[in-house]
Amino acid sequence: MTDLKRSWVASANSAETPFPLNNLPYGVFSTAGGVRRQGVAIGDRVLDVAAMENGGLLDFGGALQAGGWNAFMARGKADWARLRETLTGMLAEGGDESLARYLVPLAEVTLHMPFDVTEYTDFYAGRHHAFNVGTMFRGPENALPPNWLHIPIGYNGRASSVVVSGTDVIRPNGQLKGPDDETPRFGPSQRFDIELEMGAIVGTASTGPISVAEAFENIFGYVLLNDWSARDIQAWEYQPLGPFQAKATATTISPWIVTAAALEPFRTSTPAREKPLLDYLAEPGPMLYDIELSVTLAPEGGAETVITRTNYDVMYYSAAQQLAHHTTSGCPMRVGDLLGSGTISGETKDSRGSLLELSWGGKEPITLDTGEPRSFIEDGDTLTLKGAAKGDGYQIGFGDCAGTLKPARNV
Amino acid sequence: MTDLKRSWVASANSAETPFPLNNLPYGVFSTAGGVRRQGVAIGDRVLDVAAMENGGLLDFGGALQAGGWNAFMARGKADWARLRETLTGMLAEGGDESLARYLVPLAEVTLHMPFDVTEYTDFYAGRHHAFNVGTMFRGPENALPPNWLHIPIGYNGRASSVVVSGTDVIRPNGQLKGPDDETPRFGPSQRFDIELEMGAIVGTASTGPISVAEAFENIFGYVLLNDWSARDIQAWEYQPLGPFQAKATATTISPWIVTAAALEPFRTSTPAREKPLLDYLAEPGPMLYDIELSVTLAPEGGAETVITRTNYDVMYYSAAQQLAHHTTSGCPMRVGDLLGSGTISGETKDSRGSLLELSWGGKEPITLDTGEPRSFIEDGDTLTLKGAAKGDGYQIGFGDCAGTLKPARNV
Repeated sequence: MTDLKRSWVASANSAETPFPLNNLPYGVFSTAGGVRRQGVAIGDRVLDVAAMENGGLLDFGGALQAGGWNAFMARGKADWARLRETLTGMLAEGGDESLARYLVPLAEVTLHMPFDVTEYTDFYAGRHHAFNVGTMFRGPENALPPNWLHIPIGYNGRASSVVVSGTDVIRPNGQLKGPDDETPRFGPSQRFDIELEMGAIVGTASTGPISVAEAFENIFGYVLLNDWSARDIQAWEYQPLGPFQAKATATTISPWIVTAAALEPFRTSTPAREKPLLDYLAEPGPMLYDIELSVTLAPEGGAETVITRTNYDVMYYSAAQQLAHHTTSGCPMRVGDLLGSGTISGETKDSRGSLLELSWGGKEPITLDTGEPRSFIEDGDTLTLKGAAKGDGYQIGFGDCAGTLKPARNV
Repeated sequence: MTDLKRSWVASANSAETPFPLNNLPYGVFSTAGGVRRQGVAIGDRVLDVAAMENGGLLDFGGALQAGGWNAFMARGKADWARLRETLTGMLAEGGDESLARYLVPLAEVTLHMPFDVTEYTDFYAGRHHAFNVGTMFRGPENALPPNWLHIPIGYNGRASSVVVSGTDVIRPNGQLKGPDDETPRFGPSQRFDIELEMGAIVGTASTGPISVAEAFENIFGYVLLNDWSARDIQAWEYQPLGPFQAKATATTISPWIVTAAALEPFRTSTPAREKPLLDYLAEPGPMLYDIELSVTLAPEGGAETVITRTNYDVMYYSAAQQLAHHTTSGCPMRVGDLLGSGTISGETKDSRGSLLELSWGGKEPITLDTGEPRSFIEDGDTLTLKGAAKGDGYQIGFGDCAGTLKPARNV
């Protein structure tokens, strides 16, 4: 574990800031009336790297002035390292304090999607989540599908529905049919839920199958990801071809891309294999990360309650394994592809990553600090994912991943 | 049914050409060493509309010089009609024969993807296909999933894998596990198959739920679509979240976008409902099309055999119904989204749209005209989808949708 790297930006040297010099996450911001600009978070500031490239202080062929990070990612690993090294040098204690003119207070900016999501794939790699959900539907003996310990199960999600933290989410309508209903009806989902996930961003394209080692190298960075899910729509629609409209309302990501480089000191191995994996899925080294995660729920106008705490390190498959599997069929991957980890649930009841699990399908509602019960999300609730890798006297934070549920449209 | 519109391009007046003046489909072509240019097929020629806009003969704000049709689609319905009317007038008998200088022989061009696929969704709307597949797996009593007559079942596919006709397809590797195997193994798919489909292209974006009538207006045009499928990979991977790598090797589309305007005389209604649909899926008018379809299979170096003949008019749900359903959750749709119809199988054995059905899961191999048996696709086989709406003395053709299967990569 490395120590805090000290910066001449004083607020970056606090143990509490999510954005010390060790982090340098990439985002897109605007100030009042301004256009979208690429920036890098440092302490309580954003470094306006778009203006720096425009002013000749950085040169990445215009890729810092594109209003999103796809063009920069496409330039490749050498440039990923060059920008990180350059900024680390510039912002370090003894660096170039004249760059203060490119710092904008975070409190004054609006954050936007940090990159264009090319395609979005969601996985199902949480051992405890799969077991919990399987137990609810099929009993503990048959909880895990037969393929689960062999395949990082995934399905294609909807890239157009991915939004940045702070975007309101409208409760979806859909076809609903309870087990005792004779016919389906159309109306608002009554079992709208979160899924606490990490999102991995593909930074290097590939056109054929790649190894787990190559996949690891191709991942540019990570975000927090909330895969909002309508459980009742899913229950009626998902056989035989999987979830569709249940997952298409919105997927919220945190606004900063935390690079794989920043997370390097926090690499950790996936848990012991319960069954041997096929060779193409073997990990040549630790490819998961130790990232502490939590979710809060705040009713409209009320205080927030921490409803779960868990860690990314519980996942059975790493993003590198998922990406390698994704390419087995020859599926081309492109810069900006987003891979959801699957719901991150720990072993204990208070570490479950969805309300479906926390309230056990609505049978055991949780109680908020305000005294209110919750089985699923109610209109006006704000759900916030938080995450940080904890170093010695510093942390690599992600910035909040938040969304407020608004009432369904009239039908 | 309208009659043939006569053109001064003589080859466009034949009853056999797929591209009479009534059609005017949109593609992208190049000549030897040249860049990709937008063109319109007329008889045995391509009209170089990119050069015409560059020369001031057409003005769509540069959208005819973008190397793909997305920018043109995004200009909206008024411009869709204006280009069609303008070209119809220019190319009609008595029109502007000086435009012959913009005609390139089709025989001399290479065709490319006509548009960038933004996202790709595949549906499962063929009544007979769903019944056949369900019968093979669950018996005829339980063949149709309970939701099938209520929901146009769909799942998200992989846009990066969509390729234009003529692109070779490499047999995929993947995890395979037969019902009697103790553990899965990794190797080439042994049950690689086609799916005969139509693809609908979204030409107008939407950001919330839309009606079936709006959805119909938002569809720009159609292509033939072959959703190559690895049945054995699918069998092991698809529970519980649907097909993933089984469908990610390739999806081939025909090279010409046949516009909804060209297909207007061929509108037909979906079949009688077996169960009433919810209001949001009701069609205000006929929104399916009468399009004759066939598939040929040619072994390497051998003659082709017609392996199936069917019609798009057998589908239970129209693309407009599918698109409306796709938006129920609030899912944003974008210009260039591609919707696969689902496999188009007729009622009779010789009208089935996949080898899985034609060979009844491999139990009843078909016999090619060459005498060879086929259950699934063999290396070197070329599969070609063909389609045309038949008018009085003319036809609206799509151009072939072909691909040759190459051997799997070594693993």
